[in-house]
Amino acid sequence: MARIAVDMDEVIADFIAKQLELFNQENKTRYTKADLAGKKLREMHPEQAEWIRELVSDRSYFADLPVIEGARETLKKLAEKHEIFITTAAMEFPTSFDAKYAWLKEHFDFIPESHYVFCGDKSILSADYLIDDHMRHLENFQGQGILFASQHNLDETYQPKMANWAEVYSYFQEKE
Amino acid sequence: MARIAVDMDEVIADFIAKQLELFNQENKTRYTKADLAGKKLREMHPEQAEWIRELVSDRSYFADLPVIEGARETLKKLAEKHEIFITTAAMEFPTSFDAKYAWLKEHFDFIPESHYVFCGDKSILSADYLIDDHMRHLENFQGQGILFASQHNLDETYQPKMANWAEVYSYFQEKE
Repeated sequence: MARIAVDMDEVIADFIAKQLELFNQENKTRYTKADLAGKKLREMHPEQAEWIRELVSDRSYFADLPVIEGARETLKKLAEKHEIFITTAAMEFPTSFDAKYAWLKEHFDFIPESHYVFCGDKSILSADYLIDDHMRHLENFQGQGILFASQHNLDETYQPKMANWAEVYSYFQEKE
Repeated sequence: MARIAVDMDEVIADFIAKQLELFNQENKTRYTKADLAGKKLREMHPEQAEWIRELVSDRSYFADLPVIEGARETLKKLAEKHEIFITTAAMEFPTSFDAKYAWLKEHFDFIPESHYVFCGDKSILSADYLIDDHMRHLENFQGQGILFASQHNLDETYQPKMANWAEVYSYFQEKE
C-alpha cells in the first residue's frame, strides 16, 4: 500500500473550464483550452488579471467546478489498495475553504475528510507520491512526484508526466 | 534548522477558556480550568454535549479565542532559527476554516500563510517535531512528538510533556 497525495485544481477539479466560460461570456471571446497552451489566461490578458483574480476569489467559485474526466473512477479504484489524501494549496485562495470542502464531500465521498489537507508549501506532506499540475509543488515534495498534464504546463518535460487519469491508473497497476 | 509543526487549539489558542466562560454563563456554573482535570466538559455534562457541539460549530467561535500565554513570543523567537508550520485538525470543525485563518493572520503574522495546514490525520505531516495536546495525533506522527499539557491530558505520562511555552523554549535551546 502506498500513500498517494492528490492535488485538486486542474487535477481532479476543472478550475480552468469554468474560468474560460466566464471569461468568454464577459469578453465575447471564444477561447478554448487549446488556446491556453503553455500559458495562463491572465498572462494573455494582463489587463484582465484583476478581473480574473476577483472571479476566483468569489466564495462560491470552487463550488460547482466540473470533475476532471476519470478522476473519480480512478481514485475510487486506487483507494481500494492505496491511501489517498487530497492535498490542495488552498491557502492561496483563503475564500475557497468552504466550497472546496463541500465539493470534495459531494464528488469524492469515498475519501474521508480526515484525508483532506488544505496547505500552502507542499514540502509539509509526508506521502509516497504527489500528483500535481505545478512544478513548484513537485519540486518541494520529498516523495515521487507525478506531473499531471494541464494546458499551462504543456512545455514541461518532467517525468513521469501523465496526460490523464487512465495513464495514472496504468502507472499504479504496473507498480504492483 | 528543524521543522516544528504546532497545533492550534489548546496549544496556541485557548479553546477551553472561551468554552468554560460561555458554559458558565449559560448554566450559572462557576467552573474553572482546574475543574476539568483529566476530563472534558462534555464528559462531565453529557446532557449538554449537543449544546457544546453547536457552540463550537458556530462560524465565529474560533475568531476571538485568547492566545495561550507565551505562545506568540516563543514561536517568534523559535522562528528565527527554525521553520514553523501551524498544523490544525480543522477538518473536525469544517465551520472553523475562515475564523482559524483570520485568527492566525491576526496573532501570528510572522508565520507565512503557506505554513498553515488544515488537516485531519496528522500522519500526513513531514516535520521534525509536532507540538500537540492530543495523544492520537502524536501517535500518528512520524517525527518527535511533544505533548503540550492541557487539562484533558493531565493523566498522560507521554515524554516529553511540556507544561507551558517557557518549557518548549528551553527544550529547543538545549538542542542547539
